Amino acid sequence: MTLAVRYVAARTLDTAPVQDVPPGAGEVEVAPAYVGICGTDLHIFHGDMDARVSTPAVLGHEMSGRVVRIGEGVEGWAPGDAVTVMPLRWDDTCPACRSGHQHICQHLDFIGIDSPGAMQQRWTVPASTLVRLPASLALDRAALVEPTAVAVHDVGRAQVRDGERVVVVGGGPVGVLIALVARAAGADVRVVELSAHRRLLAEECGLTTWDPTAVDVPALVGQWTGDAGADVAFEVSGAAAGVDTAVDVLGVRGRLCLVAIHARPREVNLHRFFWRELTLVGARLYDRSDFERAVTLVADGAIPADRLISKVVPLAEAPAAFEALEGGGDVMKILVDCGNEQQGERA
Amino acid sequence: MTLAVRYVAARTLDTAPVQDVPPGAGEVEVAPAYVGICGTDLHIFHGDMDARVSTPAVLGHEMSGRVVRIGEGVEGWAPGDAVTVMPLRWDDTCPACRSGHQHICQHLDFIGIDSPGAMQQRWTVPASTLVRLPASLALDRAALVEPTAVAVHDVGRAQVRDGERVVVVGGGPVGVLIALVARAAGADVRVVELSAHRRLLAEECGLTTWDPTAVDVPALVGQWTGDAGADVAFEVSGAAAGVDTAVDVLGVRGRLCLVAIHARPREVNLHRFFWRELTLVGARLYDRSDFERAVTLVADGAIPADRLISKVVPLAEAPAAFEALEGGGDVMKILVDCGNEQQGERA
Repeated sequence: MTLAVRYVAARTLDTAPVQDVPPGAGEVEVAPAYVGICGTDLHIFHGDMDARVSTPAVLGHEMSGRVVRIGEGVEGWAPGDAVTVMPLRWDDTCPACRSGHQHICQHLDFIGIDSPGAMQQRWTVPASTLVRLPASLALDRAALVEPTAVAVHDVGRAQVRDGERVVVVGGGPVGVLIALVARAAGADVRVVELSAHRRLLAEECGLTTWDPTAVDVPALVGQWTGDAGADVAFEVSGAAAGVDTAVDVLGVRGRLCLVAIHARPREVNLHRFFWRELTLVGARLYDRSDFERAVTLVADGAIPADRLISKVVPLAEAPAAFEALEGGGDVMKILVDCGNEQQGERA
Repeated sequence: MTLAVRYVAARTLDTAPVQDVPPGAGEVEVAPAYVGICGTDLHIFHGDMDARVSTPAVLGHEMSGRVVRIGEGVEGWAPGDAVTVMPLRWDDTCPACRSGHQHICQHLDFIGIDSPGAMQQRWTVPASTLVRLPASLALDRAALVEPTAVAVHDVGRAQVRDGERVVVVGGGPVGVLIALVARAAGADVRVVELSAHRRLLAEECGLTTWDPTAVDVPALVGQWTGDAGADVAFEVSGAAAGVDTAVDVLGVRGRLCLVAIHARPREVNLHRFFWRELTLVGARLYDRSDFERAVTLVADGAIPADRLISKVVPLAEAPAAFEALEGGGDVMKILVDCGNEQQGERA
């Protein structure tokens, strides 16, 4: 048996022993070390995704860990290898897969939402999902690789180039990671964020931030860019006002990368898309190259992962951590420690 | 003096003599042959653009004609040369111009809206706006070059490729031209249009059309594409429902090219942009390469311009033609004959 964090019903998590799954052909059993709590996990906790999630559901998909057991036919991996997991299983037959976009397969199994996730002591996944971690990278920091891969994918979809001016609307974990990845690509970046705590944290990462309740963001962008407008905006806030800001700051031929999930339709100033020949590009998840780039960025310190980790809680306290996160508060990323690593191994 | 069609006030046009403008340095005087009535001209006529248009305003920017007089320093043109005009004057100093996008200059002078247009017997324009027409191309057909250049630009912005499946939402003049240009690029095209008359006309041009009140367009696209969805959609209707249709028909990584002017914000299903990694790209006007490609397409018959010309009216009857167009009715493109060409020259 393995201890797991389970979503049982809206606003109800428990920790309970679940059956170990011996690795079958092509599979690997992993001992998760640290698992980040993601916005999607919170949506599940709120009950917003009950139509999709079968209960009880083991949560978690932002993880680091070590290989424990190897299934039949798996090559290239050995017990003890440090890994993260790209938590996607696709069918390889749908039109999306056939056109080379497996990561948005029309029948995607997102492991940790559609099938059991990483918040448990043993986790069996397809060997094809494993991504190798360098020995130099502490496993707590490595739990930031998955959200960093999201950011790498977003920055790639927006085709951010060296010297471009970029506005990130929303400075939560993904927004800050996008800002850091865009900066690593050579962009000059501003982060628009309501929360003073999150602005401070972004500033500590060397980012410049703006409080949209205190300044006129489009006017500031005008000053900053000599009236040209920004080259790229990322909408990471999920709010209607965030969409407006992201559209308003863009210059001629600017690109708006849509990262946040907007569950309901939003009013969009399409006239400005026409007038300035703007582009809106949706971005979802990542592919393997994004993951590999994310490993490098976290390992080489371009992503100051330790600053983004607000707290590490033991697995048994994960349900309480979800409740605390739901209340908002001054946190960025909370990790769940699955208890598989030796004391003192945390960097 | 030269006779001109003038916008005087909302729903009021007249024809009146206006002063000839002798061509200054770098300018050319042209004798317009045929001038198409564009949707933008109708917007002006309705009074929708009074904030931008100084009255009395000579309308018209879809034209063909011949060079009459040459200003100082103009080379390469001679009286009698058949021409059309790319009706744009930019400042070459704004951020849009400096980034190579002069056609969407932040201080663009659109000739025929912001300065006097072509619906007159003599018209003086910068020599830099002239585009040469081949002798083989009848001047009435050549009046379709400007809207065809719009369509070429739109198809280029959407990066339509050989073999792709394209849905054009809105089968007015620009929608049909986009469909024809996309077809010339090798695409398989469907046109969604409410008007039975316009559907018939599009079918006569060899296009397949769908009536959105009679069929379930996204379901038909599913059947057509084996559930993959369309590669590209063009929103040319200007209606809220048109935006929804264009979003709904697209497959993974589909591109929506926004052509129509949406004066008010529209609700957009942003979740689908995220989920399918769609792209929305705004398209406005054209550049010289679009115009040159349009001349070729109209001259070689890829654009069956004669089928799209519903009627040719003499300049004195242009005001009545605007009123008729405002009432809707079964028309596609109406040309104004400026009376400068010999009888019988129309093809």
